Amino acid sequence: MNGELRASRWLADPGASPDLEMDGARLVKMHGVVEPRGRLTVGEMGRGLPFAPRRYFVISQVPRTDIRGEHAHRRLQQLLVCLAGSVVAEVSDGRRWRAVHLDCPEVGLYVPPMVWGAQHDYSREAVLLVLASDEYDAADYIRDIDTFRAERSRMKP
Amino acid sequence: MNGELRASRWLADPGASPDLEMDGARLVKMHGVVEPRGRLTVGEMGRGLPFAPRRYFVISQVPRTDIRGEHAHRRLQQLLVCLAGSVVAEVSDGRRWRAVHLDCPEVGLYVPPMVWGAQHDYSREAVLLVLASDEYDAADYIRDIDTFRAERSRMKP
Repeated sequence: MNGELRASRWLADPGASPDLEMDGARLVKMHGVVEPRGRLTVGEMGRGLPFAPRRYFVISQVPRTDIRGEHAHRRLQQLLVCLAGSVVAEVSDGRRWRAVHLDCPEVGLYVPPMVWGAQHDYSREAVLLVLASDEYDAADYIRDIDTFRAERSRMKP
Repeated sequence: MNGELRASRWLADPGASPDLEMDGARLVKMHGVVEPRGRLTVGEMGRGLPFAPRRYFVISQVPRTDIRGEHAHRRLQQLLVCLAGSVVAEVSDGRRWRAVHLDCPEVGLYVPPMVWGAQHDYSREAVLLVLASDEYDAADYIRDIDTFRAERSRMKP
């Protein structure tokens, strides 16, 4: 990891930009209500949800020392939302890195295609929801960062 | 609540039927892997996810004494998945009730349109994910059970 670690709550600051300046990767604000009868967070198309997911996965019980993710997708869009606990999520173009401490369900991290992603420092109770724009396709994964850099260098500017 | 309480893990039993015999309400099995490096659960279109969600909401920090839900939808489909802790989810046609103890992320509860739903007995750490087939529409909600029964009685058999 390189560079500063941003807390996702930072998005609540007036004037904070959700853009991570990483090829479209950005933080997304969800509508949230905390009441005595419970905490409710809502994301919907046009209001935080950038696509209609065709797949989701949930990651929990990850040892704090583990790093997960560490790949990019050629076409898939993803939205990461940490529903309980916290996790550090990173995005990269293979050269620069941005790290965000996802620590509340009201902020999601949108990861566009051809942006490298990795997650680490899961807290004990962390529950990470990942919404994906399409079904599983093994050919869509780039798991080697040198391959990722090479494919990016061939992308049109 | 009336009738027996089914544990969602019951779906793992050989021969268990996911159908709750309540107008299409059913349990849905997701693919899950538990490894030393974490627990992963996946739902995707054609494999557990009955629709591409256009909205999601997450409910947590609910006092155990509280009842949530208690409404039906005219057109909306929903999938309830308890990602941490446990919750009791009920479905009803206004006459008969089915209760399921949702206690693992690998089992979802599909609630079709015109089936009444309620949730209670949230455990302290419960995180309930609800995936919805469409955006919010106030006119789609039926919040009064007598209205619900009346509308059902006018439905074609």
